[in-house]
Amino acid sequence: MKGLLGQCIANVVQLALAEKHLVARFNKPNNEIFDHYTYAILGDSCQMEGIANEACSLAEHCGLGMLIAFYDDNHISLDGDTEIAFIENVDECFKGHGWHVIWVKNGNTGYDKIRAAIKEAKAVKDKPTLIKVTTTISYGSPNKANSYNVHGSALGAMEVDATRKNLTWPHEPFHVPEDVKRHWNRHVQQGAALEVEWNAKFAEYEKKYKDEAAELKLIITGELPAKWDKHFHQTLKFLDKSCFTYTPESPANVTRNLSQQNLNAFVKVLPGFLGGSADLASSNMTLLKMYGNFQKVTPEERNLRFGVREHGMGVICNSITYHSPDLIPYCATFFVFIDYMIAAIRMPALSQARVIYVMTHDSIGSRENGPTHQPIEHLASFRAMPNVFMLRSADGNETVGAYKVTILNRNTPSIIALSQRELPQPSRTSIEGVEKGGYIISDNFSGNNLDIVLIGTGSELEIAVKAANELRKGEKAVRVVSLISWELFDNQSNAYKESVLPSSVSSRLSIEAGSTFGWKKIVGLKGKAIGIDWFGASTPTGRLYKEFGLTPEVVAAAKELC
Amino acid sequence: MKGLLGQCIANVVQLALAEKHLVARFNKPNNEIFDHYTYAILGDSCQMEGIANEACSLAEHCGLGMLIAFYDDNHISLDGDTEIAFIENVDECFKGHGWHVIWVKNGNTGYDKIRAAIKEAKAVKDKPTLIKVTTTISYGSPNKANSYNVHGSALGAMEVDATRKNLTWPHEPFHVPEDVKRHWNRHVQQGAALEVEWNAKFAEYEKKYKDEAAELKLIITGELPAKWDKHFHQTLKFLDKSCFTYTPESPANVTRNLSQQNLNAFVKVLPGFLGGSADLASSNMTLLKMYGNFQKVTPEERNLRFGVREHGMGVICNSITYHSPDLIPYCATFFVFIDYMIAAIRMPALSQARVIYVMTHDSIGSRENGPTHQPIEHLASFRAMPNVFMLRSADGNETVGAYKVTILNRNTPSIIALSQRELPQPSRTSIEGVEKGGYIISDNFSGNNLDIVLIGTGSELEIAVKAANELRKGEKAVRVVSLISWELFDNQSNAYKESVLPSSVSSRLSIEAGSTFGWKKIVGLKGKAIGIDWFGASTPTGRLYKEFGLTPEVVAAAKELC
Repeated sequence: MKGLLGQCIANVVQLALAEKHLVARFNKPNNEIFDHYTYAILGDSCQMEGIANEACSLAEHCGLGMLIAFYDDNHISLDGDTEIAFIENVDECFKGHGWHVIWVKNGNTGYDKIRAAIKEAKAVKDKPTLIKVTTTISYGSPNKANSYNVHGSALGAMEVDATRKNLTWPHEPFHVPEDVKRHWNRHVQQGAALEVEWNAKFAEYEKKYKDEAAELKLIITGELPAKWDKHFHQTLKFLDKSCFTYTPESPANVTRNLSQQNLNAFVKVLPGFLGGSADLASSNMTLLKMYGNFQKVTPEERNLRFGVREHGMGVICNSITYHSPDLIPYCATFFVFIDYMIAAIRMPALSQARVIYVMTHDSIGSRENGPTHQPIEHLASFRAMPNVFMLRSADGNETVGAYKVTILNRNTPSIIALSQRELPQPSRTSIEGVEKGGYIISDNFSGNNLDIVLIGTGSELEIAVKAANELRKGEKAVRVVSLISWELFDNQSNAYKESVLPSSVSSRLSIEAGSTFGWKKIVGLKGKAIGIDWFGASTPTGRLYKEFGLTPEVVAAAKELC
Repeated sequence: MKGLLGQCIANVVQLALAEKHLVARFNKPNNEIFDHYTYAILGDSCQMEGIANEACSLAEHCGLGMLIAFYDDNHISLDGDTEIAFIENVDECFKGHGWHVIWVKNGNTGYDKIRAAIKEAKAVKDKPTLIKVTTTISYGSPNKANSYNVHGSALGAMEVDATRKNLTWPHEPFHVPEDVKRHWNRHVQQGAALEVEWNAKFAEYEKKYKDEAAELKLIITGELPAKWDKHFHQTLKFLDKSCFTYTPESPANVTRNLSQQNLNAFVKVLPGFLGGSADLASSNMTLLKMYGNFQKVTPEERNLRFGVREHGMGVICNSITYHSPDLIPYCATFFVFIDYMIAAIRMPALSQARVIYVMTHDSIGSRENGPTHQPIEHLASFRAMPNVFMLRSADGNETVGAYKVTILNRNTPSIIALSQRELPQPSRTSIEGVEKGGYIISDNFSGNNLDIVLIGTGSELEIAVKAANELRKGEKAVRVVSLISWELFDNQSNAYKESVLPSSVSSRLSIEAGSTFGWKKIVGLKGKAIGIDWFGASTPTGRLYKEFGLTPEVVAAAKELC
């Protein structure tokens, strides 16, 4: 598996972790259907990246004895000898991380030593193994071996010739000698035989352990359980009596708390649902209450404890879903700390995989923590990233709707932005509305002959609703629209979009506690976007919101546009 | 210095590194004007972040003997005992990084041991020291000590009372006992005396070493050298004969090469200019040719070798500028890898500091590397971030202009996006134009009675120019605008903005090889933005650009709008 630098080893750590989880849940004493090793090759450059350290530290913590990593110790990176930037003792660092470390000093021709190292590594069951293999880059090339010139460039025709001579390799290009072919083809037969054997093993398993096999099949194939939707709704109702009937009369609540109910309902109905937070579980509200912690000795559990390692957390979640398509991972931190893991989020977006990012404290509403903890540009950044659903829910209904979107879209990662502060239930939010990305919350007039459209998201939908009520007192025809996900709204038909935001109405006002960047697409050049295009301050919520613009300011701005 | 988790230690590493650089450049055998130690306190949570590892690995590489870090080993993070996520042997990891490590086992009351450890650390001159201090969180609190409940919350009035009793602390809140006050006040006098002493030392220095003192004063005060601008231009002309007279007849060039000429001209005229790349110097074209590498034994040099540590590189550059305002750092990588360091860039944006980010390979033009190496959403992301100049230069003139902007704005970090492929010089680009963010490249008609405005940035300005030439053959009145920096353009007067993009002209077409997110602000709802809202592919540039939309497509789209 090739990732970005440093991400590769993090991916592999997680493949081993997923295996350990499935072993603990599905293997039986007489039928061990999971028993695979996970191998990785990493280089000096990977070791320099912080993400590699995050992942390797977690690997030992989780006791990943089936993980064997080869460290290609060739002392060359793109800019030259690693000496210019990297002199740490990698062996000692890995021992510090709790790994078993073996050193093969001649990686160029010491095949038997490499074989022996693999054997030794396999015998170490309680911790991962690093096999440091000292090699020469471009071994055999008489003029370019051990040089950074070959790190990013090909040898070139002349040097290829010289290398052939040097290694006494008499064959034509692309010719595979007969003995090599024979050696290789052996694996085809071996592999086929192993597959037959495993299928027989699984057929046996299926007979004896019907329920487990059915669950496992879902995890492997990526299908959702039959009627998962209905069971999810039932569970959610059990957890929260008012669920699905959230009305303006429902008590105000914090969307991160509502989020936790959704997570706990999912884990009841989806066999591959698991996840956790980067040391903020009690603040992100992400604990799965009926499960314990995934730890070295309890890998069957579903609460992952990532520690303060956001980038590592992101990459690990990617590999959970890469391992088996219905292992559905979620991970969490404060929305602003998503900056530490953007490189991890781009990968499932690119490779079309489902990961759920639970991002609480989603605006200046995060109070006294100060501007380092206040997201501003983040909503815009993820709206700009291809193939990511950026969802910002306003209340209970929208939170349920947002979570349903994440589960139904197997090829798209989703970010759910949630508030820290209490929010009332605006009228007429709906799950069906969320699935369309944008929808009408209220109109006080039939038809599209509107004076103004007010558009809000998340915690500011409430402000839009209040402002509309004020404006309607003056007999204005006002529509309120919730725009929870721009990507989902973009996917709707032109007719639907026109029905929500009629092109004839150029008086449009948006309100969102984040950067206004991008909003002109919605409000047009004649409309206005109220937002925050500067860094926040550190004061209690109420005062910050006042600085930012509360209902009266919104009403005033709207009046100017009408 | 408090940063985001893990960033703190990286900041401090760099303060020590800046000190080492200044020592090497300015200290004289008989007058050591720099001799400060740099101290840090870090916790378990910092250690979990990859960035901490990146920084600590570099610290030993640079031989930062004046750096002393205390590791507050209290075993508690926000979610509980660190045991649930962090069991690595921190001592061994730091020894692997090449640090000197001391362990004080009783950090709660073992003051003499701490003093002894500091003394020992000071005696170690060739490497940084970690003093691991084992402590109890909330020591003295009878009910909450050693518990994660106090990690993010206050003790509360009752527990404060109980703690006072337990520690036999008889004083009222906020009362400072006389002996403590006396002990503390001692430092005021000592500090004042030290300042007098240092000022005398510097006066002496100034007499003996006039030139060095003048240079150093600039670095400390943040003033630019007199006539730096003129000298910069002269140097640049010396490096590149065609400079400042770039015309359509100038040879096509790659903006990353032009960028290197600017860097090399700056380092001649700005005493505090230094920087480097994350192992891509030869590809980012960022080497300062008249200097060697900053290494343990050559800290007076100005080429920093960050290794493949983008996040660490970003934070280190922040602290270079925090240390002394006219130490002007630049750092470089491929534009897409900026994802690894976004959290680092947000800090100088927030704290209003000047860092220069040289970001080459700025679009799908980065050829066969594939979509992991092709930036798409990145221009939009940084346009959305407050207080960052996002500059994307089209040619030689614009590259010079962009670099001038970075130097002239001491309170704003700047990202310069540069192409990998050869670009011709479009007509009438200018340094003065760049300083306004957006400006007219060409008109074939006087006045604002235009059929269409074509807007391009960077490598696509050329396509806009070509399309305009085509359209003009059909006698259309066409304007071409370069919009190199949205932030600078936003800062212009309404009259200027109207003169470039007249509100009466709604036929506007933009072309940029990146996300179209945000462009509606420029082209309006009736205009069109041509860009890339999906992930790229891996093919040679020509073919990719064809998929994305070349001149004929732009002409066709423009004709539809006219």
